[in-house]
Amino acid sequence: MNIVEKFAMLGIDNAPGQESLQKSEQLDLRGEKLAGPRVDFSHGDVDAHLPTPGSFEAFSHGFFEGGAQAYTPYRGRRTVLEHVAEKLSAFNGAKIDPAQNLILTPGTQGALFLAMGANVMPGDKVAIVEPDYFANRKMVEFFGGELIPVQMDYADVSGKAGLDLAALEKAFQDGAKLFLFSNPNNPVGCVYSCEEICAIAALAKKYGAALIVDELYSRQVYPGVKYTHLAAQKEVPGNLITIIGPSKTESLSGFRLGAAFGSADVIERMEKLQAIMALRCPGYNQAVFSTWFNEPAGWMDARVAEHRRIRDDIMKVLAAAKGVSARATDGGSYLFVTIPELDVSLHAFIRVVRELADVIVTPGTEFGPQFLHQFRINFSQDHDKAVAAMKRLLAVMDRYRKNETAAKN
Amino acid sequence: MNIVEKFAMLGIDNAPGQESLQKSEQLDLRGEKLAGPRVDFSHGDVDAHLPTPGSFEAFSHGFFEGGAQAYTPYRGRRTVLEHVAEKLSAFNGAKIDPAQNLILTPGTQGALFLAMGANVMPGDKVAIVEPDYFANRKMVEFFGGELIPVQMDYADVSGKAGLDLAALEKAFQDGAKLFLFSNPNNPVGCVYSCEEICAIAALAKKYGAALIVDELYSRQVYPGVKYTHLAAQKEVPGNLITIIGPSKTESLSGFRLGAAFGSADVIERMEKLQAIMALRCPGYNQAVFSTWFNEPAGWMDARVAEHRRIRDDIMKVLAAAKGVSARATDGGSYLFVTIPELDVSLHAFIRVVRELADVIVTPGTEFGPQFLHQFRINFSQDHDKAVAAMKRLLAVMDRYRKNETAAKN
Repeated sequence: MNIVEKFAMLGIDNAPGQESLQKSEQLDLRGEKLAGPRVDFSHGDVDAHLPTPGSFEAFSHGFFEGGAQAYTPYRGRRTVLEHVAEKLSAFNGAKIDPAQNLILTPGTQGALFLAMGANVMPGDKVAIVEPDYFANRKMVEFFGGELIPVQMDYADVSGKAGLDLAALEKAFQDGAKLFLFSNPNNPVGCVYSCEEICAIAALAKKYGAALIVDELYSRQVYPGVKYTHLAAQKEVPGNLITIIGPSKTESLSGFRLGAAFGSADVIERMEKLQAIMALRCPGYNQAVFSTWFNEPAGWMDARVAEHRRIRDDIMKVLAAAKGVSARATDGGSYLFVTIPELDVSLHAFIRVVRELADVIVTPGTEFGPQFLHQFRINFSQDHDKAVAAMKRLLAVMDRYRKNETAAKN
Repeated sequence: MNIVEKFAMLGIDNAPGQESLQKSEQLDLRGEKLAGPRVDFSHGDVDAHLPTPGSFEAFSHGFFEGGAQAYTPYRGRRTVLEHVAEKLSAFNGAKIDPAQNLILTPGTQGALFLAMGANVMPGDKVAIVEPDYFANRKMVEFFGGELIPVQMDYADVSGKAGLDLAALEKAFQDGAKLFLFSNPNNPVGCVYSCEEICAIAALAKKYGAALIVDELYSRQVYPGVKYTHLAAQKEVPGNLITIIGPSKTESLSGFRLGAAFGSADVIERMEKLQAIMALRCPGYNQAVFSTWFNEPAGWMDARVAEHRRIRDDIMKVLAAAKGVSARATDGGSYLFVTIPELDVSLHAFIRVVRELADVIVTPGTEFGPQFLHQFRINFSQDHDKAVAAMKRLLAVMDRYRKNETAAKN
């Protein structure tokens, strides 16, 4: 394989946020455009849900402090690491020594890339979940690893994610050295049960495999759902990294802040990789970590409640549409929506929806090649605009149902 | 090779900025400490040479603009790309289509990592210069390439860098697919002649090799030195990437801003890699690019003049020390200082200097294993503190000269 072939695998045309760059093509457009304010469900709307209070002031403080904040060691500034370690330990229940077990990164994506780069050698077998975050698959491919997909039957269960644990054990038996998964799951928004988490940890330990747990959305868990942090369990593998950051619930994505904590030797390798990748999490931006897990009283509860209301009202819209379903989100801001058979392809439909309804969603195929009847939305949007946008999307969808007369609007 | 062995090659203990994390060890400390304000020559001092005027205001504007600046396509926001392409084209002389030939990155380090990741497959031969930027070697190793070092006899020449062009041609004949170099060179600060640049471009074209030219410090060239941009030449190879950013002369390192421009197909691969590495150059920070090549009238000339004065005064201090030499910097803020034989190792000496003189420098071995009698300084420091610090360093050095009586202070 040469470099051109290698990168041909890493398609990004349908990746969230890239839609505006797609080349225009002939689309089978049916009926009139449906008017309404554009909603880009490919990521959260930080204008509707503002960044954490004080984040700008913290950045300003960092900038005017000058050199001490501009140039930090590769892992991050000591005082920032200490703050983050203390807060994350209290939240997660894992013991985190800021000098040994923690690194600050350019976004949680940076943390994931470093963790993968510090674990995967060409030819290594890596188990991932389907569906799961689209970059997981691409990172395995970039580092020359071999994918072993493990299915998650999320649709008709509750109180657990629905991971096929027997298949995970088989993957380890077949030589998977690493298992990577997100909890809450991206794109489904389901949360793993305590039993699932303990089983994953025990299997990884039994087979000497490494684990990377993506807990990016773990602060936004809806009432009634029990969340289990893998790193806080008694039985964990020796090579374990957890990643998290304030880009989602806290709306701080524009600062590119992420963190990874776990096994000291893996963190050390991640530090070495960060030294050649981007040197450090942006210096001035690191100052914004002081606001993390430090939000005003009641702020986080209010943010979770707002998102629950949006979720519930979108679920009502979905429930009224024939052949459309989604599992209610346990945590985070994603819904993975299943739609009926259409007489155009999923990718064509998604482009049609953008043209006729001014609504952007992410195709299911980004999360596994078999998800040809699914799309993902991030419902961290203005409530009314989001509900109206989903109604427009479904109205457009009715025009493309297979073997059916288009429903009237 | 397993992952532990792979990362064992990527040492960072002596990398600039990491010195404060070095484990303390028994040092052969001779004589009293020399008092004076600490100078960290491992990187520039952004408190002595402030960030570009308006940079904070540009960031603020980006933050308060909100979502449009927080979430940009992976290559960067269109309006920012257009500004940067126009300014870089005017500066460099190369034609840059902002939609095809440009990507914004998390620092120039990010640009370099993406360019390397988009070119190097395991087993590929890559030619690098010795001495040159320490991360170049490490990136080749990380991506599984094979290093072919090409020597640069910089010391006793002027008007050119002194690259061994015959050795470069031999490297291409031996199969090097890529040649990576910095101009002005890091750590020497020499600038390649027009003849050298044209010869490099012609050789790469002849042998079908790719080029990555690191022009990070190319805006800070001292009067009388002619600088040649490779990308603007008539004969260039089909695979050519130039990287540059505002982290050095402009003192914007704390924002982590970088850029790469060149061949459309390589930029496309870099975009795909950025999508899984860190998603994008931090969104709000991208707004700061509006200040780049847009500095107040006279600002850049004044900055270059300030640095020339510091260079000249440090060169005078060095010239007065027996057995010490450095080539005067053509461009940038580095001096690569050669010292005489000592009766301690280079690394021990550098730690001694930190203890006894409170001065931090980077060992020559970071730039090539053979540079056992060299250290690098970044003289973008407060003028008086820097000159005093170099005097203290040399005074300490006198205590460790081999077979000589320590000179009196």
